[in-house]
Amino acid sequence: MTLFSKIIKGEIPNYRIAENDQFYAFLDIFPLMKGHVLIVPKVETDRFFDLEDDLLRECLLFAKPIALAIEKAYPCNRVGISVMGLEVPHAHMHLVPINSADDLNFTRPKLKLSTDDFQTIQERIISFL
Amino acid sequence: MTLFSKIIKGEIPNYRIAENDQFYAFLDIFPLMKGHVLIVPKVETDRFFDLEDDLLRECLLFAKPIALAIEKAYPCNRVGISVMGLEVPHAHMHLVPINSADDLNFTRPKLKLSTDDFQTIQERIISFL
Repeated sequence: MTLFSKIIKGEIPNYRIAENDQFYAFLDIFPLMKGHVLIVPKVETDRFFDLEDDLLRECLLFAKPIALAIEKAYPCNRVGISVMGLEVPHAHMHLVPINSADDLNFTRPKLKLSTDDFQTIQERIISFL
Repeated sequence: MTLFSKIIKGEIPNYRIAENDQFYAFLDIFPLMKGHVLIVPKVETDRFFDLEDDLLRECLLFAKPIALAIEKAYPCNRVGISVMGLEVPHAHMHLVPINSADDLNFTRPKLKLSTDDFQTIQERIISFL
């Protein structure tokens, strides 16, 4: 079972933002910015473009209200998207509030946040959903 | 009219990869990697998540065969996605063949390619579509 499947099943504690039958959204614990959210299909598929058409069709629709909530919670130029998948073999999409291209640069050191910080971010984003 | 609308209408020369009623795909002329493609909805909308639901629903489906063709043309770990939109006020999605997070780092200097290079890349990707 992948790390993300354990998160989705609640076997690994996480900061849940939203879910439906197909997708689960939670805070990235190695965030580039406050408000950095991961969107993961519940099915285990390594490569994003190997997802079934129905998941590709619904992914951005699931992401949309979350992106708008992130933007309200953490004002920014806009919410950017990144899909790489070089580390965890379970397709996922990053939503990150950005003001510059460097805010979506995954070679940068990640933010170090406390449990309190993460809980505050989680509550703030959910309050705008 | 945005730069991308001029490209879509053919008023600005470009290296077309594919199109349908809703989207147009062409080579980014400031590529991070050989095989870097831009996908643009034909409608002019600045912010990606302001696109109508039907476009959000179809965007990744339009991108999928192009991503698979890029991967065949330019072998890589996988094709990454980036959506930022900080420069041109017309929503767009980048598809980039990547082997590391730095390959999708938009703060890096872009490749300088010749017209011949771009034509070769265009033909190579189209041959796998």
